Amino acid sequence: MSDGESSRAGGPQIINTTGREPADRTVWIDADDPRVVRCIEQRKLPFEYDEVAITSSGQMTQVIADMVVRGAGCIGVSAGYGMYLAALATEGLGAAEADAALAAAGAELEASRPTAVNLSWAVQRQLAALKGIDDASERVETARTLAETIADEDIAMCAAIGQHGLRVIEEIHARKGGPVTIMTHCNAGWLAFVQHGTATAPMYAAHAAGIPIHVYVSETRPRNQGARLTAWELHQSGVPLTLIADNAAGHLMQHGQVDLVIVGSDRTTIAGDVANKIGTYMKAVLAHENGVPFYAALPSSTIDPALRDGVGGIPIEERGSEEVTAATAFWDGQQIEARTAAPGVGAANFGFDVTPARYVTGIITERGIAEAREDALLALYPEFAGRADG
Amino acid sequence: MSDGESSRAGGPQIINTTGREPADRTVWIDADDPRVVRCIEQRKLPFEYDEVAITSSGQMTQVIADMVVRGAGCIGVSAGYGMYLAALATEGLGAAEADAALAAAGAELEASRPTAVNLSWAVQRQLAALKGIDDASERVETARTLAETIADEDIAMCAAIGQHGLRVIEEIHARKGGPVTIMTHCNAGWLAFVQHGTATAPMYAAHAAGIPIHVYVSETRPRNQGARLTAWELHQSGVPLTLIADNAAGHLMQHGQVDLVIVGSDRTTIAGDVANKIGTYMKAVLAHENGVPFYAALPSSTIDPALRDGVGGIPIEERGSEEVTAATAFWDGQQIEARTAAPGVGAANFGFDVTPARYVTGIITERGIAEAREDALLALYPEFAGRADG
Repeated sequence: MSDGESSRAGGPQIINTTGREPADRTVWIDADDPRVVRCIEQRKLPFEYDEVAITSSGQMTQVIADMVVRGAGCIGVSAGYGMYLAALATEGLGAAEADAALAAAGAELEASRPTAVNLSWAVQRQLAALKGIDDASERVETARTLAETIADEDIAMCAAIGQHGLRVIEEIHARKGGPVTIMTHCNAGWLAFVQHGTATAPMYAAHAAGIPIHVYVSETRPRNQGARLTAWELHQSGVPLTLIADNAAGHLMQHGQVDLVIVGSDRTTIAGDVANKIGTYMKAVLAHENGVPFYAALPSSTIDPALRDGVGGIPIEERGSEEVTAATAFWDGQQIEARTAAPGVGAANFGFDVTPARYVTGIITERGIAEAREDALLALYPEFAGRADG
Repeated sequence: MSDGESSRAGGPQIINTTGREPADRTVWIDADDPRVVRCIEQRKLPFEYDEVAITSSGQMTQVIADMVVRGAGCIGVSAGYGMYLAALATEGLGAAEADAALAAAGAELEASRPTAVNLSWAVQRQLAALKGIDDASERVETARTLAETIADEDIAMCAAIGQHGLRVIEEIHARKGGPVTIMTHCNAGWLAFVQHGTATAPMYAAHAAGIPIHVYVSETRPRNQGARLTAWELHQSGVPLTLIADNAAGHLMQHGQVDLVIVGSDRTTIAGDVANKIGTYMKAVLAHENGVPFYAALPSSTIDPALRDGVGGIPIEERGSEEVTAATAFWDGQQIEARTAAPGVGAANFGFDVTPARYVTGIITERGIAEAREDALLALYPEFAGRADG
């Protein structure tokens, strides 16, 4: 096993323009000025660490639309804080005027990323809580408390996933002794939520519990979320890691170097088929072939109770070919999109793939771990029963 | 299936500094001046097409050492031409002086890439043919004829691999009708030989025979030989292709988009285990899982008759981590190594992996196609019998 923390580490140092230690949350209320919400400028990661100070819901709308923040959990929480900033702007208004102003701000926020369900959910939850409050300071306090609650709920959900996943790591450690080697793919880390993340939550929990782990991070072409985001956040948290080309995953498993694979999921069917970043399916098949346990860690909001067949039923987004013919990189002090492929050739770019349930050892959720079968998922989530076709 | 030749093509145009059409050989004697050997400057591909004019064996030594030319076949042929240039420099010398000069030039050439067996073989073959020739013009003519013979033999071997592999493509086309979709990995193309290549030879043969094919080229991180070299040479030859991220190979196979996989090999055991560029093993397992035939195309010089167990017996080269944390790219008019990974993180870089014979449908050689089993390979190559241990 290569030691990613010492002999092979190297390269440029990250640029930090903030003059302070990087945050351990993606979005938060400024400790010095409660009228300011701060977030990590994720578009500049990992080459530069920067933060954005947000003082209005309009700015938060822009920050979400421009993908300064990204990831389902993080967007929802950001929208909650956006509504708090909107409430601050209603000081001096009565209930009716405030309700109208808040509704307008909420509509703007909801339109910033139209397909993000967490976003709309957070906005509507704030609007319902704030409706008809006549006292401006009560309005602000309610919005602030709810924004923090939404963030805390996201954190608690990820922490629960981490504690359930921790059991799997503990069992392997008890059996094996040395460091538990875990492979992951893409970024299902805290950068996509507020803290902990989903696939990374068990890793952070193990690290916090003193169980030695070593994470193999696959770079995740074409957008390199593994190399850029997961590597950054694990490194930041002091978790030992080794970056690998996506192509090396099979070789490592074949040689017994991987104890466990944990990935996230964008959508999981009630039968346990897992849609996730392109390349996940290949890791799952290789894990199955080499007897390596393969887990998907996800909040139950990701489970689609109406769908069984993921391969046939989940449409796969095709994205622009320029992501495949180029790479986001750092050169000469700036972030660039550098051409990597032969000029003039075309490329296909599938954003996701579907891993059939038979390759999935288990689904780690906030309520516990289920085998990737309908009956097992329904045992954890009985409220999903009877919603699938056929 | 995405059409790589029309709607999705784009990006910058290749820079061509030669003022002529790109060559269809990697190395050749200049048609206008037979005292000059020309080769493609492969280090600049695919962003710039350039040629190098070589007028001495010392220059050829440098060209090989600097990897202007690369690939086992191409290096051997280049060495043959290097000895022709050495013979040209012996005009005016008698047999004894010429032999000494040729031996010195040959030793230099052999030292340029010490592990390339084809190189030493070509040099020794020239030295044996030229030894003791007193007439300078006879010496030059002998060296030139042998250099061309070595090139022609390499071309004929690749062409034979192409014709054998063509049968597989013809059978699929006869059964299926439409274009035959072929996936490949890395560059086992004519750029590594003189013409045809190995994995690409059946593709070029099918294209020449008018059988419609469409090639999925995986980019082959970390060094991107697929995106850079295979995509360039197929595009150059008018073969329809679509570039994909390595991560997309499984998704395409799962959805029935791949009829056939053909890769090259750096070393194949007599039992049919195939060592090739990292990521080959993952493609082979996915092909097996999805019922897609998987072939390795290789000259018999690649077969190791003394080794059966490839996974246990073939050492895997670990290369520098900077290949994983960066990408060779084109930016602002120049070729650069652009940082793609988070600063400070370490990476592991395995150059090759081994695909066990059970995942290999067949081995395409210059003598025909063998199943990936010892008895089948020995039936084609009886001279390899009795050399494996145990």
